[in-house]
Order: sequence, then structure tokens, then C-alpha cells
Amino acid sequence: LEPKKKLINSADGCVDEALVGLVRASGGLSLLKGHRVVLRSDLDNLRGKVALLSGGGSGHEPAHGGYVGAGMLSAAVAGGVFASPPPASILAAILSLHNAGTSGVLLIVKNYTGDRLNFGLAAEQARNHGVNVDMVIVADDCAFNQPSKAGRRGLCGTIFIHKVKSNTDPYTPHHVCCVGVLIAGTLGVSLSPCSVPGCLPSFELPPGEMELGLGIHGEPGIKRSQVASADEIVKTMIDHITNPDSQSHLSVNSGDSVVVCVNNLGALSCLEMAVVTRATIICLESRGVVVARVMSGSFMTSLEMAGVSLTLMKANLETLRLFDAKTAASAWPNLSSVSVSGRSYMIESQAMSTRPQDGPLSPVMRKVLERVCSALLGKQEELNSLDRAAGDGDCGNTHAQAAKAIQEWLRDHVVPGCPGQLLSVLAGLVQEKMGGSSGALYSLFLTAAAGHVTEGRSNAAAWANAMHAGTQAMRRCVAVCPSLDALCPAVDELMKLTKAPPGGEMAVLQNAVEKASSGAESTRDLTARAGRASYIAAERVTLPDPGAVAVAAILKAVLESLKG
Amino acid sequence: LEPKKKLINSADGCVDEALVGLVRASGGLSLLKGHRVVLRSDLDNLRGKVALLSGGGSGHEPAHGGYVGAGMLSAAVAGGVFASPPPASILAAILSLHNAGTSGVLLIVKNYTGDRLNFGLAAEQARNHGVNVDMVIVADDCAFNQPSKAGRRGLCGTIFIHKVKSNTDPYTPHHVCCVGVLIAGTLGVSLSPCSVPGCLPSFELPPGEMELGLGIHGEPGIKRSQVASADEIVKTMIDHITNPDSQSHLSVNSGDSVVVCVNNLGALSCLEMAVVTRATIICLESRGVVVARVMSGSFMTSLEMAGVSLTLMKANLETLRLFDAKTAASAWPNLSSVSVSGRSYMIESQAMSTRPQDGPLSPVMRKVLERVCSALLGKQEELNSLDRAAGDGDCGNTHAQAAKAIQEWLRDHVVPGCPGQLLSVLAGLVQEKMGGSSGALYSLFLTAAAGHVTEGRSNAAAWANAMHAGTQAMRRCVAVCPSLDALCPAVDELMKLTKAPPGGEMAVLQNAVEKASSGAESTRDLTARAGRASYIAAERVTLPDPGAVAVAAILKAVLESLKG
Repeated sequence: LEPKKKLINSADGCVDEALVGLVRASGGLSLLKGHRVVLRSDLDNLRGKVALLSGGGSGHEPAHGGYVGAGMLSAAVAGGVFASPPPASILAAILSLHNAGTSGVLLIVKNYTGDRLNFGLAAEQARNHGVNVDMVIVADDCAFNQPSKAGRRGLCGTIFIHKVKSNTDPYTPHHVCCVGVLIAGTLGVSLSPCSVPGCLPSFELPPGEMELGLGIHGEPGIKRSQVASADEIVKTMIDHITNPDSQSHLSVNSGDSVVVCVNNLGALSCLEMAVVTRATIICLESRGVVVARVMSGSFMTSLEMAGVSLTLMKANLETLRLFDAKTAASAWPNLSSVSVSGRSYMIESQAMSTRPQDGPLSPVMRKVLERVCSALLGKQEELNSLDRAAGDGDCGNTHAQAAKAIQEWLRDHVVPGCPGQLLSVLAGLVQEKMGGSSGALYSLFLTAAAGHVTEGRSNAAAWANAMHAGTQAMRRCVAVCPSLDALCPAVDELMKLTKAPPGGEMAVLQNAVEKASSGAESTRDLTARAGRASYIAAERVTLPDPGAVAVAAILKAVLESLKG
Repeated sequence: LEPKKKLINSADGCVDEALVGLVRASGGLSLLKGHRVVLRSDLDNLRGKVALLSGGGSGHEPAHGGYVGAGMLSAAVAGGVFASPPPASILAAILSLHNAGTSGVLLIVKNYTGDRLNFGLAAEQARNHGVNVDMVIVADDCAFNQPSKAGRRGLCGTIFIHKVKSNTDPYTPHHVCCVGVLIAGTLGVSLSPCSVPGCLPSFELPPGEMELGLGIHGEPGIKRSQVASADEIVKTMIDHITNPDSQSHLSVNSGDSVVVCVNNLGALSCLEMAVVTRATIICLESRGVVVARVMSGSFMTSLEMAGVSLTLMKANLETLRLFDAKTAASAWPNLSSVSVSGRSYMIESQAMSTRPQDGPLSPVMRKVLERVCSALLGKQEELNSLDRAAGDGDCGNTHAQAAKAIQEWLRDHVVPGCPGQLLSVLAGLVQEKMGGSSGALYSLFLTAAAGHVTEGRSNAAAWANAMHAGTQAMRRCVAVCPSLDALCPAVDELMKLTKAPPGGEMAVLQNAVEKASSGAESTRDLTARAGRASYIAAERVTLPDPGAVAVAAILKAVLESLKG
């Protein structure tokens, strides 16, 4: 076993460097020289007010430095990774806040023996310096039905306390009260351990197992089991948090209103986080609980633990007012103040306006289409063979699929007479039946062309403009496409149709077909440059591109059917 | 090999469930029925304005649904995990925006063949419905010196485009322009692969190695090497992003101003993220680049990939105005609009006011202290022996360490005459020399007591109040502590000293010592309840608690020295 790979410079330096990273990236934070203390840069704005100070071990980022800012903490003290901060730094933070002219300092401390002692000691020292200082202990852990006499641990519920304490006005003395116990309850689950930089993982979890109720330093939880579904896990967690038989439950009943924090313990993907968020909202609502607000993200982490904790906070109008109040703290999310429960969030998709069918299909158009289909079917093996040199060898098959689908559709459906509508239908057919990049490209061409041969415009000039529009659409959507090497010179020629060509329309069409053929031939010198073929880019392909050959064949079939 | 454990319900359902999670948690978002489309709920506010639509494969959360909201996207379309969204859903989104009365829809598309084709196709279809629609392609990848002909990939720089395009006013038509190429450049590094739900990891990375320049779907990067330090990795990345010899570099020179995004690709710990953030700021500044803003967090992830990408965006006053503008998008962080470079962020720690030393120590106090020290040294083995039953067997040693430190200090230093100052010095001594919970508790007691025996107050009543204050401080900081079982009854007795006791002061002291002894004896029946001993809570301890015995011994020594 080796310590886990980490993106740091050294285990010794990472805490101090992380604090510099946090403070420098945030416009309103400062560091106290010689200490791991993050302070609001605008301490002057706290004159005459009560300052809020929190802190604890590092490794729980963004806690607590990320919660420093107007509307939340005034300062935060960091210890080493998973270690309580030294009393000297806590005292230095308290004195800085005191010297800024604050009327008092309230310490918000998670319920761990080390934190209580170190913050408590600094508080006593500060009192001897004449500072008005008080302390609240947060103990929101719901894991143990019978918590040890050291009490419930302080977990992610702490950040709710940072938020609602900040805007409590006027300040009332708190002394020690376990605020967390009364209003917030937290339970976590993890699929992996975490590891302190330079150390081995904090524990081992067998493959396929998860652990429920563990602490934010990887302290043992209450149960290990096989990983269940997100819905089942969330149900188990909420059952446990609210179980009245547990001494450390949070009483949440039907009709109660709660604020929820879905907290990424470190390495859970955002996709999973969103799945768990949905499960949590639905599970609470199924019990008649009103979900007033949800915050979902990384708020109190355990390094890179792949897990999530749920915190419920009982909410009334006053709590919500405090929760919704603006804050400058960098780690507080961009939340709206709309109730989650009771909000309608589904919008009906509006039906597309469909134009009346006209038609039937003109015999000429039908003949053109049939000729194109048989040409493509006749080229199936040739196209496959060309494609084997540079691609996955199925170019003929995909074109044949499209051809067969069109043949079948011509046979079985009422085919619209308006060329624009016809092209739109064909676009849908090839997209569905041909699939892949080729299907999308043909569909794109046909869709863009369709708009130019509607409502009576279907003379040669309109068709030329349609072909041009289709080509332009392809160019917009793919950087390079060998089919365009056949198509573009042909379309350039066809554009002569827009201005009564002296040699007649068929001559232009004849020339266009020849340009397409020579364009397709020219792709012999191309290195394959897009799609799957681009990954074998180094080799020169000495055969013509099958897509370009197919385009030339289609144009040739159109010419032949019009000649006939 | 097995698919990685995930907190989901099913691989098939996770994308739809995650969208519900996102939309329900955010107060201002809606879902389009039948499609994976997230829309602003307040589409009415877009009447007459240009709507912004983006999207792409899922697995990159919070992209793109998290960027929907006033001031950023109007809507976002999601595909399956790492799969481009179907044109039908893109079209449904465009039509919803069109039907809301917007003047046009601008598509912001990352440069992948599938996305370009599907968004392009939907755009053509929308044009056929009379919608004014345009598309910008973001291609900010800086990995390849010679990018393939498909062009540079679209990466995290996309979210900068979401932000700055939203507030561009008035709207100018864009058609296809690779905005990313001009103003933003991105490069990623990863320590791990990621895995699509239900699938095996996308690639394998040998232990101790990292990969530079890989895509957000785990597409191959440019180099694998041993994991280097964060500073070295960041230097390599910024060298590469800005290397003028690379066709896909971003030109950033000394004096230029940039906005930086440090993007967690999924599973990097927040601690590491902050270390990388610091390294990035310092590296850029060392080249004379002005770092205008930094955002650090999870913005465009690759499921649970343990890696980070850096995006630089060239910044001028206009870009910064657009970047700083308020947005309701749930995934946009709480940023300040203060320049990172040039801001002073170190605050001097203020020196504590030290009171002038007074007097030499009174002979009585010296005698008391010496007697206490020798009593503790005499009890060293007894205390160790008691501690072996319930703790780690060093209680006598830690008390002896404190006693020796005090003896040494009495011998070598000028000892203050003011009892309060004396107690403060002793508090510092025991905290430093005794260490652990015991050191912190004694220090806490002494510090809290010190404030009551200063400035002339050092009669028996003052000492009683001091003892009481010390005890209260301990009670505030530890839930349960057996030493308090000896201390509290003694202090209750001592409080009689505050009201001229009829039997005289020495009688009270004598009674207090007896109460302390019987209090210590009473701990025989306790289960150990705090500190390390709490972990063997199940067994009843039949010996008295060594901490309580030590407290009783100290009080007895005080009494004896005062009697003498």
C-alpha cells in the first residue's frame, strides 16, 4: 500500500498553501500573519457588532474559510489536516476581531473534545484580555442511537449555524448551547475512505460495500452493507435521522418545513449528487414534509471521500429569512428563495405547427428518388470497400439502409408534393435510419435545402439555392468533410441556374455531375480528417473517400433520371 | 474488473433523475416535458431578447443545466452520459424559447462532431419554422500542438462564453465563429480515469502516473508521466497553454490580464483544489500576467475523474463587466469583483498588551506550588497504575512532566507576584509541557481562574471565585470529565469563603479537601466517558479515575502547605 496520489506540493505545506489559494482567489479575504487564520478584509464594517469565529481541522474545505464574508463568519481558524487548531491561533483571531472594534466574539465550534478544549482555552485567555466572548457548540450528528458521553459530533449542520447566527440581530449571549442538537441533524454515507496527505487511507471498505454514519474524519459509522440504490440509501438515512427511538434524532413530522443540505463528502460525481438530491426531496415529500430550500454541493468535505451527507434543518419564517439573506462568503451557493415543495417545474412541450399536406408527389420527383436509391444500392460493396481503407467499412451499408428506407416509404406512404416538405421528410428518414455522422450530415443538408423549395418555389434556380443552403449548413457544422469536396464544386456550378444559363439547364447539371466526380477523385490525396477516420490521420489514404463517391453517384443518378 | 460503485438507482435512469434533482433544487428552473431540456421558469422575461441555448452530453454536471438562469443561459439540452443530445430535443428547446417571444436563439456548442451536427440540424429545422437562430462553436482545448482537422475540442472555457455572451447587448449575429479559439484556452490533467455508469473505467492509468491534456470524456491526452508536485504541474500546464509554437495556444503575455477558472474534473479534494489555485495565481503572476479574477470549483466535470483543468480567458474592461454581472444560475459561484493581482491580503497580527511584571512571588505561594509539585511526583506511579485500567497508563507521567516544568520554572525565572499573572504563566506551562487533553483542561482551569485574582483581589473570597470560574470553564468545554467529580464538590465548599465562614477559612479548606477525596473515590463507579477512555465504555471501571485522584492530591497539598 502506498499513500494516495495527490495534487499537492508536500503533506507539510498543503494546509498553508490551500489557505493562500482560498484567500487570494476571494476578493474579500485576508490572512493573519503567522497564523492559519482567514479574516474578512473589511473588518471595519464589524465595528460595534458581534463577530462570528469558527474553525477546526483542515481537510474539510470549503469549511471554514469559505464561509468567511459579510453575512456569515468574520474569521475562521484552521488546524492541520483533521487536527484541532492551536489555542494561540484561535486567540490571535479573537484579538484581531476585538481590536477591530467589535462588541464581542461568538465562537461556533463543532463538538469534538480537541476543538472544545482549544477554543475554550482561547476564549478564557481572551476574557482575561477583556474580550466579550461566548461559544456555541454544534452537535448535529444523528448516527448513534445512544451517543457517547462526549456527545454528538459536529458535522455539516455547522454551516447552517454559520449562516443563521450571522444575521441574528440583536445579539443575545449564548454561553454554551448545543444549537445543532435542537435544529439540525446530519447523517453521512460513504463508498470509500479518505486519506490524510502522506498517509495511508483512514480505513478499508470491501469492494461493493458502503458505510453509514461515519464521521468527517473517517471515524467509524454505525453500519456497513452492500451498496444499495440511491433511493434506498436516502430512505435509510432519513429514517435514521428522524427515528424517534434514537437519542440523537431530529424530530421531523408531516407538515414540518425543512431546509436540506446535500453535501458531497469529496469525490462523489456531480451526476450522483443530483440523483441523491432528487431522491432526498422525493423521500421527504412522501412523508408530508415541506422542503423549503435545498443546497447541493461540497460544503463540509472529508478530503476525497466518495460519499454524501444529508443535513436537515427545521425551518420557520425567521430561519428562512436568515438562510436566504445575502452573503459574500465564497463557498455559499447561488440559491433562490423559492420553496422547493409546491413549485411547479414541468413545462408542456408545444406542438409544432404542421403544414397541410399537399401533393401527390410529381412523377419526375418519384423517378429521381427511385434512381438515386437504386444507384446507392448498386454501389453498396464499392463504398464498403473504399471505407475499409480509412474507416470502419460500413459506408455502403449505411447508404443502402437509407436507400431501402426511402424505397419502402415511397411505396407505403402518401408522399407530399411540395419539394420542401418532401426534403423535410427525407431528412427525418435518413437521420433515423442511417444514423451516425452520415445520417446527421445528409439530414442537415436536406433540412437546410427544404426551406428553399417551398410555397411554389421549385424551379431550377430554387433548387440551386436549396443545394447551396444545404452545403452551407454542412460547412457550418463540420470543420472538414470529404463529401463537401464533391458537393461544393458541383453546387458552385449549379448556382449558374439562378441566372438563366446560356447553354441551358441540362448542360449545367451535366457539368455539375462532372465536377462532383472529379471532386470525389481529388479526395485520394486527402488524409482522413474527421470522425473515426481522423484517428488514423498519420497515414495517407490513396483511395477516394467513400462519402464523396456516394455524393457524386447521387448527383449522377439525379442527372440520369432527369435526362430519361 | 467490475463497474465502479455509484450512488445512483440505475445507469439508464440516472441522467433523467439528475435533471430532476437539479431543477427541483433550484427555484427558477423548469423541465420541458418529454425532453431532457432545462429552461428558465421565467421565460416571459426573455420577450424581445435573444435567448441563449447550450447543452451537450451528461456527466459534465453542473454543465450545462447549472448555468441556466437570468444572466446566463436561457435553456440547456442534455444528452445521455457523454452522448450528444438528439436533434428533436434541441429543436423542442429552440421552439420553446421562440414561442416565449424571444427575438432569436443563439446556440453555444462545444466543438465535437456529434454536438455540431445535432445542434446544427436542429438549427436548420428551427429556421424552417421561421426561427431566427445562430450558433457559436467553442473550441478552447490547448492540448494538441497540431489539432486534428476536426479542430480543437470544447472544454471548460465554454462556461466563460455562457457568461459573457449572456450580457452582450445589443445582440449581433454570430453565425459560426469559434469564440473559444480567440479568447479562452484550457488544459486538463488527471490522476485517474472516470467511468460511465454501468461501464468499466474509460482508460487505465498506472499507479503513480498522471495524464496531461485529456478530454472531458476521457479522450487521450498528450502525455503521461509520474505525478509531479502541484507547482510543477501547474507550470507545465501554463507553459503549454501559452506556448506560441503550438497551433492551439492562447497568447498570454506579460502585462496581459486574465480571468482564470480552476476546474475540478470531479473527484479532486477541495484541499488539493485550493493548492492548485494558489500555484496557478503565483505562476501567472511570476510571468507578469495580471490575474483579474479566479473561480475555483466544479464547473465542467468528467464524472468522478480525479483531476483539474485550467482555463485562461483574456480579460479587458468589457469582458470583466460581463463576467462580474449578476446571474441567477445555480452553479455560478459567489465571486467578488476585486482584482486578485495587486490586492494586499496579509494582516499583521497585533501584539498582545502585556501587563507590567509586579512583585516577587510571595513565600506562601511559592511554598504551595512546591508542595503541589512534590505531591504529584510522589503519586506518579500510583496515577500511572490507575490509568492503565481505563486509559493509556501515562496519567502519572503527564502530571510529573508538569510538576517538573513548574519546579524548573520556579528555580530559573522571576516569578510574578500577582496571583492572576502567576496562574496565566502556569496555564501556558502546563499547556506546553503536559500536552493532550489533560494539559488543555488544567490550562483552561488556570486561565479562567486567573482573571479573578488580579489587581489586588487575592483574599480567600477571590480565590474561591477563581476556583469556581476555572471549574465552570472546564464544564463548558467538556461534556463529562471525571476530574470534575473531585473538583466540583470541593469548589462548592470553597464558595463558603465568599461569605466570612463562621468556622474560619482553614476549616472550609479542610472540608473541601475531604469532599475532593470522596469525589475522587466516587469515580470508581463511573464508566469512562471521555477522551480515549470513552472507547472502552462498555466495561465498568472499578478503580478511581486517576485525573480525579490527582485533583484531590493537589488540593490536599495546598491545604498542607497552608497549614504548615
